Amino acid sequence: MNILFLGTSAGVPTKARNVSGVALRESKGKGWYLIDCGEGTQHQVLHTKLSFHSLKAILITHVHGDHCYGLPGILASAAMGGREEPLTIVAPAGIKAWLEATCEVTQLCLPFAVDFIASDELPSVEFENMAVATFRLSHRVASYAYGFTERKIDAALDIEKLAQKGIPRGPLWGQLKQGFDVEFAGERLKSHDYLIFKNKPRKVVIAGDNDRPELLVDACEDAQVLVHEATYTEEMAQKAGDVGHSYAKLVAAFAETVQLPNLVLTHFSPRYQPSPHASPSIEDIRAEAQSVYSGSLYLAQDFGEYTLDKSGHFSEVAGE
Amino acid sequence: MNILFLGTSAGVPTKARNVSGVALRESKGKGWYLIDCGEGTQHQVLHTKLSFHSLKAILITHVHGDHCYGLPGILASAAMGGREEPLTIVAPAGIKAWLEATCEVTQLCLPFAVDFIASDELPSVEFENMAVATFRLSHRVASYAYGFTERKIDAALDIEKLAQKGIPRGPLWGQLKQGFDVEFAGERLKSHDYLIFKNKPRKVVIAGDNDRPELLVDACEDAQVLVHEATYTEEMAQKAGDVGHSYAKLVAAFAETVQLPNLVLTHFSPRYQPSPHASPSIEDIRAEAQSVYSGSLYLAQDFGEYTLDKSGHFSEVAGE
Repeated sequence: MNILFLGTSAGVPTKARNVSGVALRESKGKGWYLIDCGEGTQHQVLHTKLSFHSLKAILITHVHGDHCYGLPGILASAAMGGREEPLTIVAPAGIKAWLEATCEVTQLCLPFAVDFIASDELPSVEFENMAVATFRLSHRVASYAYGFTERKIDAALDIEKLAQKGIPRGPLWGQLKQGFDVEFAGERLKSHDYLIFKNKPRKVVIAGDNDRPELLVDACEDAQVLVHEATYTEEMAQKAGDVGHSYAKLVAAFAETVQLPNLVLTHFSPRYQPSPHASPSIEDIRAEAQSVYSGSLYLAQDFGEYTLDKSGHFSEVAGE
Repeated sequence: MNILFLGTSAGVPTKARNVSGVALRESKGKGWYLIDCGEGTQHQVLHTKLSFHSLKAILITHVHGDHCYGLPGILASAAMGGREEPLTIVAPAGIKAWLEATCEVTQLCLPFAVDFIASDELPSVEFENMAVATFRLSHRVASYAYGFTERKIDAALDIEKLAQKGIPRGPLWGQLKQGFDVEFAGERLKSHDYLIFKNKPRKVVIAGDNDRPELLVDACEDAQVLVHEATYTEEMAQKAGDVGHSYAKLVAAFAETVQLPNLVLTHFSPRYQPSPHASPSIEDIRAEAQSVYSGSLYLAQDFGEYTLDKSGHFSEVAGE
């Protein structure tokens, strides 16, 4: 599973950072999920290898413009690019009404079906290779986190158990290995019971704007990675609270509490400048988070890509 | 007056061209007008010296997404940047309803007033330094062109006429020169009658999507420059007609008919590639237009800037 950041700025784009957008790629094939779609997300996609044809779903965390104003344009471009497969959109109900109004006013007729799922009902959605769960956050408007757990993971046959059961080596073993239940000696045998899973399923949680990270305790269970906003540092705690955002220490302390192995911070206020010598600097966010968190910490950048391998090891992918 | 192109691609952005957006700068000061606002226009503005504080008006030619999807984001960013002055928006009525729906769903509260003027009523709008007229075009949806004529132009006092009238040299001359009418010997004297204008007012016409350039005959009277779409070449005339667009020869032949001195083509289908060796190439559009047009022809590029000087001379500004 790969996480590719398409936008990492809060509120407004800067020359170096677009507003929110994250691409989550499946470990096999080209399938991907887009979490949030700020204005200009489709422009960022143009500079990656991602294709709108293999986009499985768009998930919007909340209705603020820097997380959704790119939605009409990305749908229009997918349409003009010839997409015909249905597309799932998981988003607050208001987004559905807004998209319908947008399509009507701007005469946008999509040649593919949109399967809209309201995140307000905290849905669990199963895609072919990924299960998505929804979690409620705290912000000025309803905001959500999405937990992505891979569905088809590598497993070995439990040969000892197969032998005990007297199942002969052959096609039945192959079917069980591929995840299919089989009939044997008048009994229905479940694939799951004859497999040994080498690794835990990979799980990534991608959160929207949120001023109470502790709401993510359940979401983070068994997760290897949390992607969370850190709009400010503690110096701005008052302002952060006023506008419903987190600051670095708040998120990092939560991650430490739940012993989360990997934390990726994003959605930085443009007030934090890229140079480590500037004040305030993006490095202030890193230093503050690092001071209370012992896991692996990352500060997202636009086009920064990370990979979570089968064994649960998370690392940054070197740029081209 | 300067014309700065922010986006020159039709329908979808490419790596080198954004969707429609043109900035027209006044000859004095920093005031500017934005004609069309496709998605990502605010991102383009970030790479120019334009400021949202000196934006006088946004004018939208028609409701298609590649001409307006950047509108909510640019308003949100102007708001976050501290703009408080009212902003005029001239656009088809549907845009007003869509903006209102957008503000409601996405909880966007603008700290400045928006003075909305429906282009469907072909309004004439007078700004301090610019008069704007609206003209109807032909497209799949209602589409408009905007003609910009400068209002305050350099003039010299008609000293002979002042002497004949017996007006003494002094404050009255100054007021007349500055455009104010004055009282003299019980008579109201109009400034306009005592001034000699050195040049014709500068006039630029910027058109939206349109498959009938001849509709611009009146708009182009006394204009030095027309900015018009040339989405295709004649080879695609059938398709162009089907989707309500112009091809290069159609626009250029019109410009030749009205003896327009300067024609800037824009809004190119992404099928026309940048390399002159590619097929079809953007140079095919140039060659086709040049074959029927004897004036000065320009093909717009993103961040390409042109200046129209006092004397009506139009030229490209060299890049930095």
